[in-house]
Amino acid sequence: MQRIITLTTDFGLDDGYVGTIKGVILSIYPEASIVDISHGITAQDIPQAAFIIGTAYRFFPPHTIHVVVVDPGVGSQRRALALATAEGFFVAPDNGVLSQVLKDQYTRALAALQIDARSRWPSTEMPLPLKGLGVKAVALTNPTYWLATVSKTFHARDLFAPVAAHLANGVPLEHLGTPIQDAFVIHLPQPQKQADGTIMGHVTYVDHFGNLITDLTPSAVAALPGEPVFEIAGHRITGLSHYYGEHGGLLALVGSAGYIEIAASNASAAQQTMARRGTPIRVRPAS
Amino acid sequence: MQRIITLTTDFGLDDGYVGTIKGVILSIYPEASIVDISHGITAQDIPQAAFIIGTAYRFFPPHTIHVVVVDPGVGSQRRALALATAEGFFVAPDNGVLSQVLKDQYTRALAALQIDARSRWPSTEMPLPLKGLGVKAVALTNPTYWLATVSKTFHARDLFAPVAAHLANGVPLEHLGTPIQDAFVIHLPQPQKQADGTIMGHVTYVDHFGNLITDLTPSAVAALPGEPVFEIAGHRITGLSHYYGEHGGLLALVGSAGYIEIAASNASAAQQTMARRGTPIRVRPAS
Amino acid sequence: MQRIITLTTDFGLDDGYVGTIKGVILSIYPEASIVDISHGITAQDIPQAAFIIGTAYRFFPPHTIHVVVVDPGVGSQRRALALATAEGFFVAPDNGVLSQVLKDQYTRALAALQIDARSRWPSTEMPLPLKGLGVKAVALTNPTYWLATVSKTFHARDLFAPVAAHLANGVPLEHLGTPIQDAFVIHLPQPQKQADGTIMGHVTYVDHFGNLITDLTPSAVAALPGEPVFEIAGHRITGLSHYYGEHGGLLALVGSAGYIEIAASNASAAQQTMARRGTPIRVRPAS
Repeated sequence: MQRIITLTTDFGLDDGYVGTIKGVILSIYPEASIVDISHGITAQDIPQAAFIIGTAYRFFPPHTIHVVVVDPGVGSQRRALALATAEGFFVAPDNGVLSQVLKDQYTRALAALQIDARSRWPSTEMPLPLKGLGVKAVALTNPTYWLATVSKTFHARDLFAPVAAHLANGVPLEHLGTPIQDAFVIHLPQPQKQADGTIMGHVTYVDHFGNLITDLTPSAVAALPGEPVFEIAGHRITGLSHYYGEHGGLLALVGSAGYIEIAASNASAAQQTMARRGTPIRVRPAS
Repeated sequence: MQRIITLTTDFGLDDGYVGTIKGVILSIYPEASIVDISHGITAQDIPQAAFIIGTAYRFFPPHTIHVVVVDPGVGSQRRALALATAEGFFVAPDNGVLSQVLKDQYTRALAALQIDARSRWPSTEMPLPLKGLGVKAVALTNPTYWLATVSKTFHARDLFAPVAAHLANGVPLEHLGTPIQDAFVIHLPQPQKQADGTIMGHVTYVDHFGNLITDLTPSAVAALPGEPVFEIAGHRITGLSHYYGEHGGLLALVGSAGYIEIAASNASAAQQTMARRGTPIRVRPAS
Repeated sequence: MQRIITLTTDFGLDDGYVGTIKGVILSIYPEASIVDISHGITAQDIPQAAFIIGTAYRFFPPHTIHVVVVDPGVGSQRRALALATAEGFFVAPDNGVLSQVLKDQYTRALAALQIDARSRWPSTEMPLPLKGLGVKAVALTNPTYWLATVSKTFHARDLFAPVAAHLANGVPLEHLGTPIQDAFVIHLPQPQKQADGTIMGHVTYVDHFGNLITDLTPSAVAALPGEPVFEIAGHRITGLSHYYGEHGGLLALVGSAGYIEIAASNASAAQQTMARRGTPIRVRPAS
């Protein structure tokens, strides 16, 4: 089987860093089908990386190995890790870039126990205990699977890429290092019900088209009586549309990641509203 | 045989959308050799997409499947289609992005009947009858070959990519949906002979180097008596050069797509002339 | 064996040029594993291309074929060439883009003779004799291995890509053209010892993060007595750090290409110093 290795980094495409990583992977595992998810993460932006890999990984086969390297702490004492889940393998620095992936595991594990995970996800950065999540994790401590020389500044090339390639080649996860019981996660934005019956959410990602992806789910919005009214950055949008071209101006619709998205037909909602990641969005029932 | 699937979109490379599409393709057809043609089409710019796929597809083997998604009407009633031609398969929204590909078929079909197709290509947006073009076409109406859940905003991922992957897997075109007899095309710029013996053409594309690609053909220019003189945006260029570095300043030469191109040695003709797509260019015989 | 073909160009990713090149390669050698090293070289910037391929090629298997096309002289009389070295094959215009690759061969050949190559590398552009370097080289003069029609402006598509694909297919280097005894190289920056005991180096590359990569080697710096002090663009940095996050402000460390690099923790050293390629950097012993 030709295994897929995906890459998500903040390296950009101009400097040859990504090509070099692929050279390392193909030197160890020549059959690799390598897929770039993004190399356009804003430099050192861990929450953005967590979002992007968190929406993309579900569309890959479960034998895929996802390498995620946004790594401001490269060369320091921060851990490097590999995770095995039912939906894919992940190789990354232990700095929160896998938070959304882990939240998915967490939510599923708690749902099986009929617990709503939403209010329990850490509200600050911290190590999340992995027990009960159905995840196997190791710290990458075995230099057998690294390049012979490891720089202090480019672990993607010298450590993460070779580890991913060896994993693809069939090296068992346990050989890559020592088992760990927790992984570092970051706070992930989450809508809050307000005393006045409205819901307060946030923009979690602004895409290339200027679409504003939020943390509001269609079910939360549907639970409001009557047609929803969205308020964001001084703009008001009534009702949910079905597609981008439905009418001019701003519109709200269910985006491809399953969240409410604010868009503008043939235009950029980000430009029209000046909203950006973190901007609050309030939903209220039509009055 | 490992089939090639190419991708041409306006999605950009930063958001993970393109990587996600590749995950979908590889989940269905793991052997795919996926080639990015461009993800840098200006958002919603159908003519630009038509130009880029129209110059690129000829350089791929005929079993290649080209997925072209610039799709401002996603989620609306616009049709989605798959085309089979002697030179490749195409999967796209029915909005004109395949106009240059269809014009090539059209021109060849009319040439076989000794009819000059140039003046007959639609001068406005309209459905082009496919009869006699040697093209098989279906509307993508069979959900068997889509993802189980289809969003309203990301048909590239949920519909076009899976259809392309199933086609690569050997699913016959006819199984993908219902046969159609026409496909939507847009006007494509074309030079006009003027009463005074000059030819009036247009810039059809400005590339990364600032080269101005026009709709003027070398044969039309060669038919003029004497050395041609090109007039564009207040600049005048005499004669055809053979290569970019032939002399300083602006020069005209036959570009790689087979059309006259205005370039500047080690510089950007677009910056020097301020010309852009649609800018007229006149050719006259040297006086 | 599935051979790797890498691409390094100044074509950008938006125009479909790179995708077209891949179509040509896959038409001739369908098994190709094609890796983009960079298509973001500044237009016509030969030194930048020489740097990027020069740092990347060592991380690929020796059967890899590297296509490097930054080619302001395309269509002129400049030669096109293919090189075979112990560490890879190279296909490129003969304009200096392979200078760093050739310098590596040169340095190794002279080191075997116990000669220090550093002061002997050409200080101006010139043809470098290949004798004794262990390199086989041909000028690409055999049109059998080109596309049937060769444009004057796009040899990457019409000449370099098909030649690389035929090479991957097993065509011997000698069949591609006539043997040559030299290859054009450019001056490459090199630190100079000064009369006052300091070393004067240069910024050789500024990456996507704003890291300033220099031509200073750790061994030259280590040879200075005491802790090194770096002076660049009016800034002073004392000592070598071990990783990017070690402290705030500017820091100097050994970068991933094996040279001293000036960086800024979670920020751009290029922005903070306004340094760019060519900016001098002086190292002196701590006083």
